[in-house]
Amino acid sequence: MTDIHDLTRQLQKKNDSKIVLLVADGLGGLPLEPGGKTELETANTPNLDALAARGTLGGSIPVLPGITPGSGPGHLGLFGYDPLQYQIGRGVLEALGIDFDLGPNDVAIRGNFCTLDGDGNISDRRAGRIGNEIGAPLCEKLDQIQIDGVEVFVHHVKEYRLVVVFRGEGLEGDIHDTDPQATGVPPLDPVARSEGSAKTVKVAQEFLRQAREVLKDDSPANFLTMRGIAKRPPIPTFEEVYGTKPGAIAVYPMYRGLARLVGMDVLDAGQTLSDQCDRLEQAWNDYDFFFMHFKYTDSTGEDGNFDAKVQRIEELDAAIPHITALDPTVLIVTGDHSTPSKMKSHSWHAVPTLLAADHCRYDGSTSFGEAACRVGGLGQFEAKHLMLMALAHAGRLEKFGA
Amino acid sequence: MTDIHDLTRQLQKKNDSKIVLLVADGLGGLPLEPGGKTELETANTPNLDALAARGTLGGSIPVLPGITPGSGPGHLGLFGYDPLQYQIGRGVLEALGIDFDLGPNDVAIRGNFCTLDGDGNISDRRAGRIGNEIGAPLCEKLDQIQIDGVEVFVHHVKEYRLVVVFRGEGLEGDIHDTDPQATGVPPLDPVARSEGSAKTVKVAQEFLRQAREVLKDDSPANFLTMRGIAKRPPIPTFEEVYGTKPGAIAVYPMYRGLARLVGMDVLDAGQTLSDQCDRLEQAWNDYDFFFMHFKYTDSTGEDGNFDAKVQRIEELDAAIPHITALDPTVLIVTGDHSTPSKMKSHSWHAVPTLLAADHCRYDGSTSFGEAACRVGGLGQFEAKHLMLMALAHAGRLEKFGA
Repeated sequence: MTDIHDLTRQLQKKNDSKIVLLVADGLGGLPLEPGGKTELETANTPNLDALAARGTLGGSIPVLPGITPGSGPGHLGLFGYDPLQYQIGRGVLEALGIDFDLGPNDVAIRGNFCTLDGDGNISDRRAGRIGNEIGAPLCEKLDQIQIDGVEVFVHHVKEYRLVVVFRGEGLEGDIHDTDPQATGVPPLDPVARSEGSAKTVKVAQEFLRQAREVLKDDSPANFLTMRGIAKRPPIPTFEEVYGTKPGAIAVYPMYRGLARLVGMDVLDAGQTLSDQCDRLEQAWNDYDFFFMHFKYTDSTGEDGNFDAKVQRIEELDAAIPHITALDPTVLIVTGDHSTPSKMKSHSWHAVPTLLAADHCRYDGSTSFGEAACRVGGLGQFEAKHLMLMALAHAGRLEKFGA
Repeated sequence: MTDIHDLTRQLQKKNDSKIVLLVADGLGGLPLEPGGKTELETANTPNLDALAARGTLGGSIPVLPGITPGSGPGHLGLFGYDPLQYQIGRGVLEALGIDFDLGPNDVAIRGNFCTLDGDGNISDRRAGRIGNEIGAPLCEKLDQIQIDGVEVFVHHVKEYRLVVVFRGEGLEGDIHDTDPQATGVPPLDPVARSEGSAKTVKVAQEFLRQAREVLKDDSPANFLTMRGIAKRPPIPTFEEVYGTKPGAIAVYPMYRGLARLVGMDVLDAGQTLSDQCDRLEQAWNDYDFFFMHFKYTDSTGEDGNFDAKVQRIEELDAAIPHITALDPTVLIVTGDHSTPSKMKSHSWHAVPTLLAADHCRYDGSTSFGEAACRVGGLGQFEAKHLMLMALAHAGRLEKFGA
């Protein structure tokens, strides 16, 4: 099987087209009972419906049927990177989530403050769930740790959670967690799973030795455990594989981070969808491809708030005219996964997807929703193939073979 | 991922069934505007519609979503050969296109006559687009070139285009083009991309040395450049992988060549679809599988002539009773790709596909068109899987596993 990107490298073609990929996080939903409507079908979406009428619909399968993705694999798939091939460690995602600009020589670690008893055993794996007012200054103290030959960064995330990054040559991230996932036992020593990570193990040991000293008088957070120790995977850039110059307009750090991971320029935008549309308009001539991210369809789904998700979808709909006014060659509206409010979580269900372009094969759809997408012209497709369709409809792929 | 042919080798079963694969080149189309009909949907096709009512429909994805195939990958997919695995060089396709019987020891090259100025630089990459009356005799002169240890064939294609074939042991085709894709510079020397092609490079150098001498007094075509230097890929034969004896009935050389590439017997036929049907009837008892090719649905699409394509589809429809009168066990009507007249080119859109057989699951279709195919019983499938469906419906595949 040929790598998708070997194909796009070979076939990519430049032109003046503009592609907009609008990702409504967790867009897909479920009806609350048989015969009912989903959140998207319930919402009043005149603009998306008009777009459906001049576009083609389908269902995006984020990874494989039945596989529920996190934000990382969900977005990598939409960007055309096989999420099973490019796997992102938890530490990396945690670093991306606080907007840390992770480089290729960085090992990122998700840390949890914990409480050690007098015997050095863990008595609380989350240090009594300390608040930010305690966690943040402790991270500032740990950030002072110095280790020969590497740079050390310690950033607070939230409550008892932190990110540790080691930056330096020769560091690999193939190391077991030090969290024993149990109380009454000591934290584990960092142990390499493969030879290349021996240097990182030494650095981690030294960091933990100093951290124990730094935190010894703090209670209840007198130590930390390490999880998801990882480097960012080597990922070819979006521009290299597709020949398009990409800009990302996302409010939440995690999505800016994922965009940065594939080499997108991350554009500053305000906090609202309207701000993001303004930014899109300003940057219109500077990029060929725009990734726009809207978070609240996911968060309302996670809250199990059907009505709030409907309202957020209507908010999304209201932004569409601002985008179509720019006359993109290809406009895609989709999600990175479904987040049915009925389930209060991400799910595996196919994600409603709308592609509007002059050369799409109209499929008779007159509204944007799960039922219409099920019989739409794009069929049920793997998310990783969506970029091929985007490029094709933008006239950015040469013919394959003669 | 198991190779499809490992599976068919293991499961193939003989019986008296007959399979007909009728390929209407570039069959798929687009409506000219939202809500409109495609060429196939516009055409009056009572015979295809009746076949749809007793068959099942679907959409064939030639390579991958968004990938527009040339004729080579388009047909290999329909024949059940993964077009990403079996890639055919341009020189090979050009040779197939003039009905040259390319063997496994042949290196095929697409040549362009060009004009060299007094300094040996290219002043015209197409030698003033000379006509056939000039190109053909020049090829006859070049065909006299003799090189120790190899056979040399030079055939005229059209105007300034020719095919050069070197036949001999130890020749590989991994060589850069000699066409510099620019004027004002000399042609490039042939350079091997890998060690195995060293002998071919020497042969090519000697050929070009002699060609320069042969053509030195001809104007404007006083030299040639070489492109798409390639051998035919090693392809297992259709009969070996499927256990069926295949015959091909195609008017255009390119498609006869593609059939020959997978080991089909190429049957002489006249110029019309009616002639082809007569040939089918004559050969009915000699083969298990028939590939029939109809070119004009593609050429009218390429011309951007919606009405002419509609008319050609109606011509195709009129031939159907001639085929069904033979009572094939499985009759498939499809295309190697779409050629929407709206785009005047091949495209990536799914190709309408109809499979009629006693054991198909009727899907309620009553007409053959893109909209019906979108929701048909075959779903949207990769072209390379169509042969599995053909064999299955012909009862030619054993159960897999116990």
